[in-house]
Amino acid sequence: QGTRDHPPAQAALRERLLSTVVSCFKRHGAAAIDTPVLELRETLMGKYGEDTKLIYELQDQGGELLALRYDLTVPFARYLAMNKVNNMKRYHVAKVYRRDNPATTRGRYREFYQCDFDIAGQFDPMIPDAECLKIVHEILSDLQLGDFVIKVNDRRILNGVFAVCGVPESKFITACSTVDKLDKVPWEEVKSEMVGEKGLSPEAADRIGEYVQLHGEHELVGVGSVAGGGRYDGLVGMFDPKGRKVPCVGVSIGIERIFSILEQRLKASGEKLRTTETQVLVVTPQKHLLAARLKLISKLWDAGIKAEMLYKKDPKLLKQLQYCEDTGIPLAAIVGEQELADGVVKLRDVSTREEV
Amino acid sequence: QGTRDHPPAQAALRERLLSTVVSCFKRHGAAAIDTPVLELRETLMGKYGEDTKLIYELQDQGGELLALRYDLTVPFARYLAMNKVNNMKRYHVAKVYRRDNPATTRGRYREFYQCDFDIAGQFDPMIPDAECLKIVHEILSDLQLGDFVIKVNDRRILNGVFAVCGVPESKFITACSTVDKLDKVPWEEVKSEMVGEKGLSPEAADRIGEYVQLHGEHELVGVGSVAGGGRYDGLVGMFDPKGRKVPCVGVSIGIERIFSILEQRLKASGEKLRTTETQVLVVTPQKHLLAARLKLISKLWDAGIKAEMLYKKDPKLLKQLQYCEDTGIPLAAIVGEQELADGVVKLRDVSTREEV
Repeated sequence: QGTRDHPPAQAALRERLLSTVVSCFKRHGAAAIDTPVLELRETLMGKYGEDTKLIYELQDQGGELLALRYDLTVPFARYLAMNKVNNMKRYHVAKVYRRDNPATTRGRYREFYQCDFDIAGQFDPMIPDAECLKIVHEILSDLQLGDFVIKVNDRRILNGVFAVCGVPESKFITACSTVDKLDKVPWEEVKSEMVGEKGLSPEAADRIGEYVQLHGEHELVGVGSVAGGGRYDGLVGMFDPKGRKVPCVGVSIGIERIFSILEQRLKASGEKLRTTETQVLVVTPQKHLLAARLKLISKLWDAGIKAEMLYKKDPKLLKQLQYCEDTGIPLAAIVGEQELADGVVKLRDVSTREEV
Repeated sequence: QGTRDHPPAQAALRERLLSTVVSCFKRHGAAAIDTPVLELRETLMGKYGEDTKLIYELQDQGGELLALRYDLTVPFARYLAMNKVNNMKRYHVAKVYRRDNPATTRGRYREFYQCDFDIAGQFDPMIPDAECLKIVHEILSDLQLGDFVIKVNDRRILNGVFAVCGVPESKFITACSTVDKLDKVPWEEVKSEMVGEKGLSPEAADRIGEYVQLHGEHELVGVGSVAGGGRYDGLVGMFDPKGRKVPCVGVSIGIERIFSILEQRLKASGEKLRTTETQVLVVTPQKHLLAARLKLISKLWDAGIKAEMLYKKDPKLLKQLQYCEDTGIPLAAIVGEQELADGVVKLRDVSTREEV
């Protein structure tokens, strides 16, 4: 389907992943903002080139025409323009929507999280850009994903290559989107698209081929790209009534692919992730003690302690202790007739069976 | 518009509010699940009675017909049925969507957060129900919202009242939805809807009037309802192919209204909420020290310290310290020519101006 339920174990792993990413964003002094999922359709139109067809549009209700946000970058630019904000460092972790043919095996979904970090404002060259690279390095290191390669490029260099190869300037953008496919399909296919669909001369295509096949030895094997980013200096100006420009640079972490990697790794390790943080189960060893359990658990909750009890009037002791084992609750607080008479609670360490 | 941008100060306040609510849910041993915003349209149809018209439908794309989730309860019931889950305590904090005429002054939006806590499963009577009431009490107390009243009722009592008043059983549900309006409009209006639109006899309406106007002295003044909940024992069965039932009870915290209250209170107090958690600004007092700043800030980030620097090659010392004051950063780590020569960093407390 391309949309998914995340049951507790998955949700816990995702929470852990997202919290690592957010910690890193906060470490860099980014503030959160929250823009809506429902955007005016006109806000999104003309901002995504050929991908505009992937924007989810809502049914016309005779009011404003709405669409679901496609990414977090265009809404951020609209926000900066509408609120006349000239500089800001922000992060945003939220869902975006793509009217795509989902390829869930390749980690592509119709509804998925984006984790964006952006720096908007007029600053000295390359300092914010460098921080974006640093943040990707920190996140991938924090997540212990193993070796990775960060590729840095500049569209102007590619444009220079195109010019040298004899591509007319009017075809730079379309040639570029074809070159982009090189990480998925072989050069021969890219070349035939350039000549057949995009109308480049075979000579120009061959010369491009010489350049684009120049790259270092070490290629990232397997999972493909898990983050991307770049400058978007013209976007805010598209929303400002006076065309006022706010240069921006940002980076987006591809959380879904990273999640797949972590999920596979967890499965391979056999480790069982706890889905709750419950510290103590309130347990009664005899019948007719529901009121005592309720009284004790209320005290624990009010003291900020994470506590549970079974929703049975008279649960068996063994069943209660088994619940601790199954769900990883480390402690049992036992209140029986003797404890009530003595005015104490017996605390049991579930794994060692020690009691105090 | 009924959808909103939340700039940093608002986003920080919301984050604080949501984290209080989530802490309470976790304290009760609830696990998170994550169901998608995009639901099959057929999942939502027939589940919301007269409110079905408020469901946002997506444009037909020649594939599955999709709609935006209207609440978190129906998707949870679908999840339980599809995954054959027989018992679960879960929380879910996420956005839902209503094709409503937004009344933002009354805290109604087209896109807003719901914070739900639910207990599914066959248990001894009233124990999970009592926990739902306890959790509302804890959250409203933790948020220090002042005095509040929790109202407990049972639809079967209202049905009994209707029967005694001579309402035919076939009109119980429609009469009930009219009585529900009593917290917004006066009795005379409710009565005229009962007789005019719903076809009850004037005698029955008058007798209902005698009952519904019986209530205690203390009414909650001002903000209206900030939480609600109840049992939904039949919902999971509507999704299960064999009609297997899973009794459920849950509660939903109305975060948007609470947010309005907290926002007004913050405004009245004049307190300025920090929008970042930055602990230290890396500062240089002379020119040509960008490399030294970058080196130091990298060390701080790698050590997990929340740090910022200005994105200027040669910022003025005063401007850097002013930035600390404006944004509430408590410390400045100063690295100048002397510090570099001595191999030290000078740490300045921004408020006391003490340096070590």
